[in-house]
Amino acid sequence: MRKKKPKAVILLSGGLDSTTAMYVAKEAGYELHALSFDYGQKHNRELAAAKEIARDAGAASHKIVTLNMGQWGGSSLTDSHLPIEDGAVDRTDIPLTYVPARNMVFLSLAASFAEAIGAYDLFIGVSEVDYSGYVDCRQEFLEAMQEAINQGTVCAVEQGKKITLHAPFLHMSKREEILWGTRLGANYAKSWSCYRGGETPCNTCDSCLLRAKAFREAGLKDPALP
Amino acid sequence: MRKKKPKAVILLSGGLDSTTAMYVAKEAGYELHALSFDYGQKHNRELAAAKEIARDAGAASHKIVTLNMGQWGGSSLTDSHLPIEDGAVDRTDIPLTYVPARNMVFLSLAASFAEAIGAYDLFIGVSEVDYSGYVDCRQEFLEAMQEAINQGTVCAVEQGKKITLHAPFLHMSKREEILWGTRLGANYAKSWSCYRGGETPCNTCDSCLLRAKAFREAGLKDPALP
Repeated sequence: MRKKKPKAVILLSGGLDSTTAMYVAKEAGYELHALSFDYGQKHNRELAAAKEIARDAGAASHKIVTLNMGQWGGSSLTDSHLPIEDGAVDRTDIPLTYVPARNMVFLSLAASFAEAIGAYDLFIGVSEVDYSGYVDCRQEFLEAMQEAINQGTVCAVEQGKKITLHAPFLHMSKREEILWGTRLGANYAKSWSCYRGGETPCNTCDSCLLRAKAFREAGLKDPALP
Repeated sequence: MRKKKPKAVILLSGGLDSTTAMYVAKEAGYELHALSFDYGQKHNRELAAAKEIARDAGAASHKIVTLNMGQWGGSSLTDSHLPIEDGAVDRTDIPLTYVPARNMVFLSLAASFAEAIGAYDLFIGVSEVDYSGYVDCRQEFLEAMQEAINQGTVCAVEQGKKITLHAPFLHMSKREEILWGTRLGANYAKSWSCYRGGETPCNTCDSCLLRAKAFREAGLKDPALP
């Protein structure tokens, strides 16, 4: 008789990292529950990608939370007054695409979803290596957030069922990550990384540049490009 | 020349506690930025109350975030399949009205809003005394959350501007709280506590019972009742 799989909640933006995270969680034997966000970003290409990836990976459920973080601006991804800049992969300042406290908001909602369905594992595809300007991609943040989640949920406080945050690529380059994902069969052809929502990726924003660099370094062709 | 007031973000549900928190923050000299949530609760009476209270208290801004936490159920406040029970103020179990990780979600969004507008103080009207079953009203949770916020925002990590969580009633009974709020001129007549959304408060849900008890113990008439 097969043992019932444990449930995991995977933050799924539809980009490269979250797509890989889905397949890592799948490989680890979890029942996959994907969570995506329509948070006021300027285009919905990545949400369309997320739906396809969740389906391809065999997710047991996929929820999309709509929440308008764009109403207080602060990021070129959500603020209609701020254009999305062309990127530079070697930048050291905080990019304008930074959405204040975004990963905290996403992980909080993931914890709520997890508690409601009885999942005790959350996956997030962040990396300290490529995204040095995003403070909410650092180990210190994830550790603090895991502690907050375990102090703020009944399952952890009252029932001793602790929630674990998994960030499998935290200390991994994007090159290593996509080599891993490719071995696991991650469907990168359907993932969407571009910050702009055109017909095809712009190839000039931060996200496109990082993606191109990762595929180049891995010696792979990006299957999402024509 | 008057010094510019520092900004504070106040979580404003429109109930007794958040109304008092608004007036405590006002008394402390902050410019008030209220934040409310349409999170899938079954009625909007408290949001209507929040709007009036923000205006009465002289808030500089009031944002309402819509997010559908009700889609994964888990609480009688958001799940259409779970009725709202009549209450008992001496209960010791976790009430069905518990919304998984709600305060974590709200504080995360408050941190995002705060970072976007340059506020470094967040007010939340929770108390450990009256709400023993809600794990996200405990000091341990608030301390962990404050740490997560300060590890997950650029202002704190990169610019040394730490965000402080204020929970002025954390160790106070509701009786003491409303005596304080009444001295500060809090407009309780417009606040809404009832979990049900009828014409008038039901007087039988947990929230109505706790409110009635507090006013009775304070020797005050509830100005919201006819």
